[in-house]
Amino acid sequence: MKAITVQDGQIELVERQMPTPGAGQVLVKSRACGICGSDLHILHHPEEMARLAGAMAGATEEGAPAPAANAGGAGGAPEIRLGHEYCAEVVAHGPGAEGAPPVGARVCSIPFLIAPDAGPMGMVGVGLSEGVYGGMSEYFLLQSEFLLPVPDGLDDAGAAMAEPLAVALHFVTRSEMAPSQVALVVGCGPIGLFTIEALKLRGVSRIIASDPHPGRRAIAEALGAASVLDPGVDNVMARAAEAAGETGEALAVFECSGATAVIPPLVAEAPANTRIVVGGVHTTPLTIDPGLAMLKEIDLRFAFVYSPEEYAEALQALGDGRVAWRRLVTGKVGVDGVADAFRVLSAPSDHVKIIVEPWREGGLEAFA
Amino acid sequence: MKAITVQDGQIELVERQMPTPGAGQVLVKSRACGICGSDLHILHHPEEMARLAGAMAGATEEGAPAPAANAGGAGGAPEIRLGHEYCAEVVAHGPGAEGAPPVGARVCSIPFLIAPDAGPMGMVGVGLSEGVYGGMSEYFLLQSEFLLPVPDGLDDAGAAMAEPLAVALHFVTRSEMAPSQVALVVGCGPIGLFTIEALKLRGVSRIIASDPHPGRRAIAEALGAASVLDPGVDNVMARAAEAAGETGEALAVFECSGATAVIPPLVAEAPANTRIVVGGVHTTPLTIDPGLAMLKEIDLRFAFVYSPEEYAEALQALGDGRVAWRRLVTGKVGVDGVADAFRVLSAPSDHVKIIVEPWREGGLEAFA
Repeated sequence: MKAITVQDGQIELVERQMPTPGAGQVLVKSRACGICGSDLHILHHPEEMARLAGAMAGATEEGAPAPAANAGGAGGAPEIRLGHEYCAEVVAHGPGAEGAPPVGARVCSIPFLIAPDAGPMGMVGVGLSEGVYGGMSEYFLLQSEFLLPVPDGLDDAGAAMAEPLAVALHFVTRSEMAPSQVALVVGCGPIGLFTIEALKLRGVSRIIASDPHPGRRAIAEALGAASVLDPGVDNVMARAAEAAGETGEALAVFECSGATAVIPPLVAEAPANTRIVVGGVHTTPLTIDPGLAMLKEIDLRFAFVYSPEEYAEALQALGDGRVAWRRLVTGKVGVDGVADAFRVLSAPSDHVKIIVEPWREGGLEAFA
Repeated sequence: MKAITVQDGQIELVERQMPTPGAGQVLVKSRACGICGSDLHILHHPEEMARLAGAMAGATEEGAPAPAANAGGAGGAPEIRLGHEYCAEVVAHGPGAEGAPPVGARVCSIPFLIAPDAGPMGMVGVGLSEGVYGGMSEYFLLQSEFLLPVPDGLDDAGAAMAEPLAVALHFVTRSEMAPSQVALVVGCGPIGLFTIEALKLRGVSRIIASDPHPGRRAIAEALGAASVLDPGVDNVMARAAEAAGETGEALAVFECSGATAVIPPLVAEAPANTRIVVGGVHTTPLTIDPGLAMLKEIDLRFAFVYSPEEYAEALQALGDGRVAWRRLVTGKVGVDGVADAFRVLSAPSDHVKIIVEPWREGGLEAFA
């Protein structure tokens, strides 16, 4: 089968043996898989992801299993197999997985495997677990008990967006904000834009968004952000503080830019009692002024991964037609165009979310 | 009147004109005033406190008033007038303050003045507001509407401890922890020890405390911490994580050491979902690994100042005899011994909390 990997800082289209489902696992065929900002981070900073994975493996109390043998990797560099935002189709059931949806059923699932060879974190299609194929392979494995049926009428690409929407819903959960509070979304890439959607789903209407890119600001506006700012022109935090001041409640900030350098000024400029949810993948040291954070009683709440319930909530909302996911999905590409899609996403562009369809060939084109 | 000030990095005993109560203010005589860790920070790092005060003044939206004219200060260096942990006695009422407790009544109060000349933050006896006398002066001003009567039977020194206990209660509030969770108190200076008391008041019984100083560990044990560790010998975070693991709930950490260098390893070593309440005065840059904080979904919750309700809660608990404050108050000193007391507290010693009695002279002695 074909698979997309990252090795030595390169996106590679490789031929690999199809995996065999173990106990409780299901073999699935990928129908659609989003390219995530964290995939880009893996491509550009593989050593940082490896360091984090190692640190987390070292932190597990019982001693983590050694990473799976990495048959496809040449030399010592790990081969990372991408794809954690997927919609898939059941192909075969492993032992004990017979109760899972039948062959041909469309499924989604949180990207976790329960298996000793699934790497220290058991994650599917993420740089933190070597040796596990993800949704940018033609076929991959999922854990049967995590499978959710894709609602009828929801496109494959829409179902694949359950994952980033779940991330965004989790950010809102982490903020513990009330619907009456003002939310500032910093960065309108896919996660920032899905955070706008997640805030709306949770009843928040006072949403301020900021991004330097006009195309992304236009999408934020189309999604219904109350105010969309250009950080090159507007004093974003002053505007957000003013809006929060009018409510008499604290401000909630969602750092969705993935740029670590954005965080210290957020801490320095935020009004008192602001909660800053730090999303995105930040792997370089973060230096803040703890004195200002103290005087203003700032919260820095780091966010990583959603609960199964949040993932199910996301898929349901998409199935119910309550999420404007088509405004964010700007492109699609076949398996041989993935490297090109990564190149496009690595520089400022009008593309936001590009869907990989590993079952076909074809270059990057607009999502119709 | 006599007053204790910090100027050019020196504790000075100076003679100053007694202040006159303005509208809504009351002139009080200080009966007892604790020396706080933040007082020591002002002494040793006045430039950092001035920077923070300036940053906060710049951050106030309406434009903060200029600091009050600083009649006593020589040259350009600001004169900081100390003392925010006090018990006082009413001496005279300003216009409109006639409803306040009568002359001779013992009172406590949150250390805030509402007055344009009270400096940018209106704080009493803190380095953040120049020109305002505090509880280490013979006389100072308080805001009449904030005054609370001292419960009968509570010593002056005990009443003065309402302030640090309120700080500690606020730390617990900021943690939003449940009584069933494990609390790790890092640093058993006065604030760490009062945090143990505050945790007990809020129903938390699984308290782990750590401090390198044996005398402070002994007090933590006497206060009833379930486990008291020496960071030079014990793997503190591993022990705390193990205890939290047994409860199945997240760990709550209270950074009470005031040592900024303590925080990055707390972030790096904490188990997943740990909330770290950062108390103490931290004025040097804080650098953490945001990747680990993200993967573990750490909260850094900075804490500064309690609410009036928390202050009243603290005073009431002290009045009810539910706080072992005498175990923490190790010394007392007259107004001419304050510089010596600061010298003692600036190095490791068996002293924890020293009470200044500005109405008398006398060197440092044990608190009887």
